[in-house]
Amino acid sequence: MDGWKYGRVLCPRHNCTASARTRQRGHFAMAAHFYFYASWGLSVTLGLLCVVLVAFWNSHWRGGFAWDGTEAQFNWHPVLMISGLLVLYGLAAVLYRVPWGWSQKKRGWKLVHAGLMLGALLLAAVGLRAAFEVHRSLNIPSMYSLHSWVGMAAVVTFACQWFLALVGFLLPCSAPRLGPALKGIHMWTGKAVLLLTLAACVSGINEQLFFALNGASGVAYSSLPPEALFANTLGILTVAFGVLVFGILSKADWGRPEANSETIPILLREGSR
Amino acid sequence: MDGWKYGRVLCPRHNCTASARTRQRGHFAMAAHFYFYASWGLSVTLGLLCVVLVAFWNSHWRGGFAWDGTEAQFNWHPVLMISGLLVLYGLAAVLYRVPWGWSQKKRGWKLVHAGLMLGALLLAAVGLRAAFEVHRSLNIPSMYSLHSWVGMAAVVTFACQWFLALVGFLLPCSAPRLGPALKGIHMWTGKAVLLLTLAACVSGINEQLFFALNGASGVAYSSLPPEALFANTLGILTVAFGVLVFGILSKADWGRPEANSETIPILLREGSR
Repeated sequence: MDGWKYGRVLCPRHNCTASARTRQRGHFAMAAHFYFYASWGLSVTLGLLCVVLVAFWNSHWRGGFAWDGTEAQFNWHPVLMISGLLVLYGLAAVLYRVPWGWSQKKRGWKLVHAGLMLGALLLAAVGLRAAFEVHRSLNIPSMYSLHSWVGMAAVVTFACQWFLALVGFLLPCSAPRLGPALKGIHMWTGKAVLLLTLAACVSGINEQLFFALNGASGVAYSSLPPEALFANTLGILTVAFGVLVFGILSKADWGRPEANSETIPILLREGSR
Repeated sequence: MDGWKYGRVLCPRHNCTASARTRQRGHFAMAAHFYFYASWGLSVTLGLLCVVLVAFWNSHWRGGFAWDGTEAQFNWHPVLMISGLLVLYGLAAVLYRVPWGWSQKKRGWKLVHAGLMLGALLLAAVGLRAAFEVHRSLNIPSMYSLHSWVGMAAVVTFACQWFLALVGFLLPCSAPRLGPALKGIHMWTGKAVLLLTLAACVSGINEQLFFALNGASGVAYSSLPPEALFANTLGILTVAFGVLVFGILSKADWGRPEANSETIPILLREGSR
């Protein structure tokens, strides 16, 4: 019977009576908000740390940045992929879970979510262009390593995801009944992109260290020079950021409370409310 | 109000009345079971395919298997890590979600889950030993690459997770009230291990192809010989398997219906029921 009892109005989710649940709701909500903000604060800190560390790595050890077809241009690739495809993407993914946005209308947050995701996609596109242009300039083949296959799968899936969400959730041509069906796929594909991105980040940092430290520099990766320790730490932090974002997305209690009206595409709803 | 209305007994989860929900329950359950079995069948197929492909790769292109301190011993490393830490682990993680086990008592499935996970941990431990012994035998440093850091993090977290679960869920010394609190952490850490494993698999296959194809063989990875195409495909399949397992674990509707008695450590409960 899933916990339903008509006389006592037993809550099927928490196995408690409605009155007991009402009394405890305030306490649970406060505790949930505290744990959420602690996790969210940590994920923002880790994300920013990843951006600072990848920029420092490429600035301090890899020769800095330029846009001239040399390896200095290639250095934009890890910086833009980690900043856009991992950090900005991850923070945009957990945006709806921030409780201080729940008292406001969701459509504003939908536009912020879509805007941040578009920013992440554009950073990733420029990051890909940096790598492809340097490869062409230096006669290095592209798209052969597993890192490149997994990374490209992440970007292409992300692009498809963004345009499908635009059509399904935002545009006036969206069918109102499509929203709820699409939402499950949207959330699942969103996690898949993050998973592909993490695998691409770890394999990419690993590959770059083998290239950079066993090649021209003459310092072997296997001797763990300061650069290797630094970039390995960056790799571990990217994984820690991803694990935390997955954890936040997985906690059902931390989701934004939904209203039925949210299934209607926002640009159709109530004129310009 | 979370959808609670005392007159109509409105279901807070599905926003429908109890009577309407009762009528529709059979239909939804059948559809959910169909989609689950389709996804589960695909994950089993993908998992087995990963095991066959990694064995074939190392048998056909990497010189086969031995336990003699040479590269033939190293070939056990990718086979055992993918078979144990990825495939057996992933299939054991979704075990509770298989509906044909729901009519049986959960404690039997808990023991099967713990047993399969122990098998996965042992395969991973032997896989690690294969790599460490070959490195020692051939004077190659260990534990310097990001791949090794992430992979070791996966195995150590998995081992801690297994022993914590043994104490928290199975042993008579487990505190009955500990179960529910531990379950959330157990599920979150379980997903974190899978995520670390996937990053380690992709970076490991990528690293091995750079070593094997740019070294002794004389065939460059960048020219995408058949071995590179084959092993890259294996890498993509490991990610597809991981994404599918994450998807199955993320669907709240596919979880095993719980009874309160399940929070009691199974070796304490009702003697030998």
